[in-house]
Amino acid sequence: MPEPAPRPAATYREAGVDREAAARAKRSLFELVRQTAGPHVLSEPGGFGGLFRVPPGFRSPVLVASADGVGTKLKVAIRAGRRDTVGQDLVNHCVNDILVEGARPLFFLDYIGLGKLAEDVVHELVVGVAAACGANGCALLGGETAELPDLYAPGEFDLAGFIVGVVEEDGRPGAARVQARDALIGLASDGFHTNGYTLLRRILFDQLGLGVDDVFPDLAARVGEVLLRVHRSYVRPLLPLLAAGRIHALAHITGGGIEENLARVIPAGVEARVDLQSWDVPPEFLAVMRHGRVPREEMYRTFNMGVGMILVVAPESVDEILVALRRHGESAWHLGEARPGATRVLLV
Amino acid sequence: MPEPAPRPAATYREAGVDREAAARAKRSLFELVRQTAGPHVLSEPGGFGGLFRVPPGFRSPVLVASADGVGTKLKVAIRAGRRDTVGQDLVNHCVNDILVEGARPLFFLDYIGLGKLAEDVVHELVVGVAAACGANGCALLGGETAELPDLYAPGEFDLAGFIVGVVEEDGRPGAARVQARDALIGLASDGFHTNGYTLLRRILFDQLGLGVDDVFPDLAARVGEVLLRVHRSYVRPLLPLLAAGRIHALAHITGGGIEENLARVIPAGVEARVDLQSWDVPPEFLAVMRHGRVPREEMYRTFNMGVGMILVVAPESVDEILVALRRHGESAWHLGEARPGATRVLLV
Repeated sequence: MPEPAPRPAATYREAGVDREAAARAKRSLFELVRQTAGPHVLSEPGGFGGLFRVPPGFRSPVLVASADGVGTKLKVAIRAGRRDTVGQDLVNHCVNDILVEGARPLFFLDYIGLGKLAEDVVHELVVGVAAACGANGCALLGGETAELPDLYAPGEFDLAGFIVGVVEEDGRPGAARVQARDALIGLASDGFHTNGYTLLRRILFDQLGLGVDDVFPDLAARVGEVLLRVHRSYVRPLLPLLAAGRIHALAHITGGGIEENLARVIPAGVEARVDLQSWDVPPEFLAVMRHGRVPREEMYRTFNMGVGMILVVAPESVDEILVALRRHGESAWHLGEARPGATRVLLV
Repeated sequence: MPEPAPRPAATYREAGVDREAAARAKRSLFELVRQTAGPHVLSEPGGFGGLFRVPPGFRSPVLVASADGVGTKLKVAIRAGRRDTVGQDLVNHCVNDILVEGARPLFFLDYIGLGKLAEDVVHELVVGVAAACGANGCALLGGETAELPDLYAPGEFDLAGFIVGVVEEDGRPGAARVQARDALIGLASDGFHTNGYTLLRRILFDQLGLGVDDVFPDLAARVGEVLLRVHRSYVRPLLPLLAAGRIHALAHITGGGIEENLARVIPAGVEARVDLQSWDVPPEFLAVMRHGRVPREEMYRTFNMGVGMILVVAPESVDEILVALRRHGESAWHLGEARPGATRVLLV
């Protein structure tokens, strides 16, 4: 190979990676991270790994871990120029996912991939992540911000998160504890949470030609506000009920809707009947169904339809649990029943 | 708002998300995941969260967690059409990051974001992740594959990972255990590992106009092969030495190079002197420096220069440790010394 002609020296900065800006951004994040650290965090931010002491007092502690993303709700946030909510969506989604295993959240790590490091973007995203970690009693133990100059389009970014919680091995809710006579309790969602956004964007932006500042069809709120309502965390109301052994199983209603998610905790020989008359589907779902001409079944398979979490409990505890949930500010109701039958979930 | 004109029903599949293909892809992944499960994994793949029992036998177990991505090495893999190596890079990078805290890996979760779900792409990526998890004695406990139709360009994807390991609280290596008379040992890297790829791509593809199938300058290998060598894991050779208490501190040489990473474990009042004559910088680094006209200092700040991991050990254990490392197939050498002085790392 011939000797190349002299040319200006290549440095990392010229190649699109600004290491000093990255270091500055890191320092501002460290302050946010420190604010979420509880007594079990043993590391300072910025080490090779984050250190967290397994909380004492468990006979047989089981770690529960989950990875998730925000999906195309991100695109709505980018379009609306709001970056403080998606971090909360991410943390709350993860927290709810491990809550269905009975786990109390211990720590969270985030991954942000973007084309060009914009300190304000990263800072605002992490502000949301840290706020939700704090609200859920969860340490933000670390994370990675990756500047990938050619992988993401300008202005685009992805956000993923990882959570670890802990539960006593023999204290876990789940299908094994569900009885054929149990009752179902529904907990209200805060809008679409983080599922169905590809379809929502297609309908609202492409088909109806709306922008984030336009009024949402049939609602007295703007499209951006409705679509960016934060995924609700159910940790605070549910941890005490889990600790009291009052919950047989939990289903977090995400992609796949009520039927698919509830089915994951319904044991063989049990039929779960969800009474569709037991709650009012919120108007944003009805507006999407009507204006988007979405078949009703597709709506229930794609969206939570107003039900963010389902509890399977003993029938005699329903009233007491509803009172406890309402005391925590939750909107909750008797959603249906389990009974002997084909192993399935029916929406009736 | 006027009633919209009738139009074909919108369904999720039309909006670009194929749920059945996603379910098929998931099942094929589950088989890979199961193969990595050891005795402590309590969950089946596909649950809301992955469950892992804290291994018994620790007095005060500390969890060590890290999140990471593969960076723009991904772009090289995409360009070369190889998807089985980047998952290994990701796992090995994460494993090394928690190893410097003394942690043995327990479990790993991956996040794959892509524009259009291509089952073969996801499968090949996870094959790499699962293979490396198996090789490192680490369970692949879960993950998320997110189809984000408008966020990633066609054919592009991102891959991030999250690892949790465990270490005895009072058994951790680190700056606190480093003495001013300690010795440094270097462990050879396998090429560029996962750092400096933005600069590498700029030089090789843009400046020199090479493709992945062209010969790497001054080397008897192709560009794609050299750039896609897998990030080396140091778990197998180092865990026994950590268990024996032989290692005072470890530095994983990633972005920032030897100086910045070694500095993270050098305590106040100690100067670490790395002898640049103690090893031969591999030819791929020299070729990049020469043909890319990269200043020498920039090379050492950006790349590992042939040193993948640095051990800080007692001077009297150097010979014994070198023998043990070589028995594990590592190329290792006496890299330099610590001594009383200004708190800094010198490359001399």
